[in-house]
Amino acid sequence: MMNTWIVNIGNELLNGHTVNTNAAYLSEQLHKLGFDVSKIVCIKDKPEDITNILNEATHQCSLIIISGGLGPTLDDLTRKSLSEFFHRPLIFHEDLWNEIQQKFSFRKMKAPEINKVQAYMPQSAMIFKNTIGTAAGFAIIDKQCCTISLPGVPFELKHIFEQEVKPFLRAYFKQLNPLQVNTLLFSLITESELAEKLSAFEEELSKHNVKTAFLPQPGLIKVKFYQQHNSEEVELVNKIKQFAKTYLSDFLIFDEDVSLPEILHNMMITKNDSLCTAESCTGGYLANQIISTPGSSKYFKGSIIAYSNEIKQNILQVPAELIKQHGAVSRQVVECMARNALNILNADIAIATSGIAGPDGATESKPVGTTWIAIARKKYMWAEQFIFGNDRFSNIQRTSNTALAKLILLLNNKAL
Amino acid sequence: MMNTWIVNIGNELLNGHTVNTNAAYLSEQLHKLGFDVSKIVCIKDKPEDITNILNEATHQCSLIIISGGLGPTLDDLTRKSLSEFFHRPLIFHEDLWNEIQQKFSFRKMKAPEINKVQAYMPQSAMIFKNTIGTAAGFAIIDKQCCTISLPGVPFELKHIFEQEVKPFLRAYFKQLNPLQVNTLLFSLITESELAEKLSAFEEELSKHNVKTAFLPQPGLIKVKFYQQHNSEEVELVNKIKQFAKTYLSDFLIFDEDVSLPEILHNMMITKNDSLCTAESCTGGYLANQIISTPGSSKYFKGSIIAYSNEIKQNILQVPAELIKQHGAVSRQVVECMARNALNILNADIAIATSGIAGPDGATESKPVGTTWIAIARKKYMWAEQFIFGNDRFSNIQRTSNTALAKLILLLNNKAL
Repeated sequence: MMNTWIVNIGNELLNGHTVNTNAAYLSEQLHKLGFDVSKIVCIKDKPEDITNILNEATHQCSLIIISGGLGPTLDDLTRKSLSEFFHRPLIFHEDLWNEIQQKFSFRKMKAPEINKVQAYMPQSAMIFKNTIGTAAGFAIIDKQCCTISLPGVPFELKHIFEQEVKPFLRAYFKQLNPLQVNTLLFSLITESELAEKLSAFEEELSKHNVKTAFLPQPGLIKVKFYQQHNSEEVELVNKIKQFAKTYLSDFLIFDEDVSLPEILHNMMITKNDSLCTAESCTGGYLANQIISTPGSSKYFKGSIIAYSNEIKQNILQVPAELIKQHGAVSRQVVECMARNALNILNADIAIATSGIAGPDGATESKPVGTTWIAIARKKYMWAEQFIFGNDRFSNIQRTSNTALAKLILLLNNKAL
Repeated sequence: MMNTWIVNIGNELLNGHTVNTNAAYLSEQLHKLGFDVSKIVCIKDKPEDITNILNEATHQCSLIIISGGLGPTLDDLTRKSLSEFFHRPLIFHEDLWNEIQQKFSFRKMKAPEINKVQAYMPQSAMIFKNTIGTAAGFAIIDKQCCTISLPGVPFELKHIFEQEVKPFLRAYFKQLNPLQVNTLLFSLITESELAEKLSAFEEELSKHNVKTAFLPQPGLIKVKFYQQHNSEEVELVNKIKQFAKTYLSDFLIFDEDVSLPEILHNMMITKNDSLCTAESCTGGYLANQIISTPGSSKYFKGSIIAYSNEIKQNILQVPAELIKQHGAVSRQVVECMARNALNILNADIAIATSGIAGPDGATESKPVGTTWIAIARKKYMWAEQFIFGNDRFSNIQRTSNTALAKLILLLNNKAL
């Protein structure tokens, strides 16, 4: 595999002002394309540091991807440093300058003179146009290495990488052997139980050199299989998929890497059902996940967030007696919340949550993390208790993801 | 300043499975303590790569902080690699092993034999106990450099750094000159307007070598001032704080780096008022921000998320006529939502939001990003229109942060 380094340039990465999400994005993309990212280095906007790292990297790598330092201001030094390192003078590109000016005039502004520097590119560089910003990227092929420089603004970097760099890399590195990635999404099962259930395939996976990664998230486990485009390996992964669909259908949410709200969105649009939530412990997190998908207003009617018992009683019409008898975190109350939400919010399906997110609120019989989730339809009710962990935010996420996952499973299995 | 490298070890950082939040945390902490982090390097769990980077780093740094590779499994190689690099054999520590066993027995489990490796430490290393996990950290002082190794699990790393490493660094590097960081939080003003208003101080700031950073977030701008403990610099920053409090009181939310929900939390607890929300475009995000602070149930009653007009009419009792005449995204509707929420949810203060988060829903006169926010009390109403941007999630965040910021300002200025 092709040895690759990622170099992120910017003072903001070295004083903690910015989390380096570019590195995570680039390394995932490069890994899938078949490159072996062996090092990620963050350095300051200092010509000396840039030169030193280029010197090291060009001796060891086939590919170097640099992000940052292509802005118009004085502290953006990547363009100049690369030009000097590779002895390629910066050449003015009239067409790039025209495009920069157009971007400003579109916003009824005159392009500042300082932006002109972004139209200068190292001689014979391959240029990657930036249709959503003013900093174009470029590649220099020299010293037996391909060095690519991209802007540091994450959405511009992603855009250029997707549109321009990926096709270039595929064409230039013909001997690449891209990894095929298959993802299975599971929920309502622990990581160790799932590993146990998939353990029968361990030997075959290692024999065929298919790498497996278990990636647990709150209330969700992604299992990724990385393989070459080799028929035996493809067949093995398909066999595991089939096994999961047949024998793990109570836990398998989806067989692609798609977010829970998106999976649910597509199901709700197809089924033409409407949805609402009645939330206590999740306090709006669940509703907010549902509306994260554009177009969710087609099926999502709204929520009642009954954070206090008063709202549970007055708006969700949960009898005070029921709360007194069983506590707000109980099967009886969460079922009543879901059932009443159906009527009050006039929806086909309702999800209700009630739990002790922590750190306060625990009782002898109900530790922090105790959570009830209910899903109701007119003639259907599902409710279950979960004991999550000690961390407040992670309990909220787990409750919400578990509720979405269970709803997807119920719809999948035509129980709802 | 002390030259420092951060070295993050773990395959998951090089294939994009994990975003390197440890680097951002450590670099921010080290920067504040007065260290100069000049490089952050991520490498795989490979002894050869670990040795190479130690070789480079010990020649250039006063301090190296390593994260990752201290787990109990075969691919955790940091402990062994450091032991070999510094020629310090691994010594068994009975007390560490006892503590590991206690952690398991607390969970009614027997400590697996593989965890025993975590009780072995390089000879003469300074040990940093891990009270919340099984991987202790350690420091080796050798080759004119202090090398610190910490576990990679973010909350364990933070815990050990805060409890053990910080006091150690302060004691060991006596000549440190920690930076004093002052933060001012602004909202309801653009970054360029704010920069303009603070521009009178530019010359003095640069003369006294006080570094300023503008850190914009959706609906919020953090301005940070970094200075030494020098009386003239401290005086200058205090002067700017005083200026902001006097002349920018419509925009200055707080003079410390605290989250908006926490600032509001402390005000609500003091004032003994209750709060509710009526949300359309924010779809629960605002409520969820409010309940992110533990103990928020003391004042937060709940919400009605009226994502559909039907809920606005049926539950929030917004007259259909009003929606028909002015549209759901209008002053009239958002004021009505806030006013009615006060009664329906029986709270002292209500926040209401209604906007076009996008990408759909725009009209000729109301582009994507058009948002109304209202804040109501029994005899008080504030409402204002904002035109945010094109990105759905960022519009939701901006609406929510702007609403919280405005509520804090109103409470601050005793308008509410």
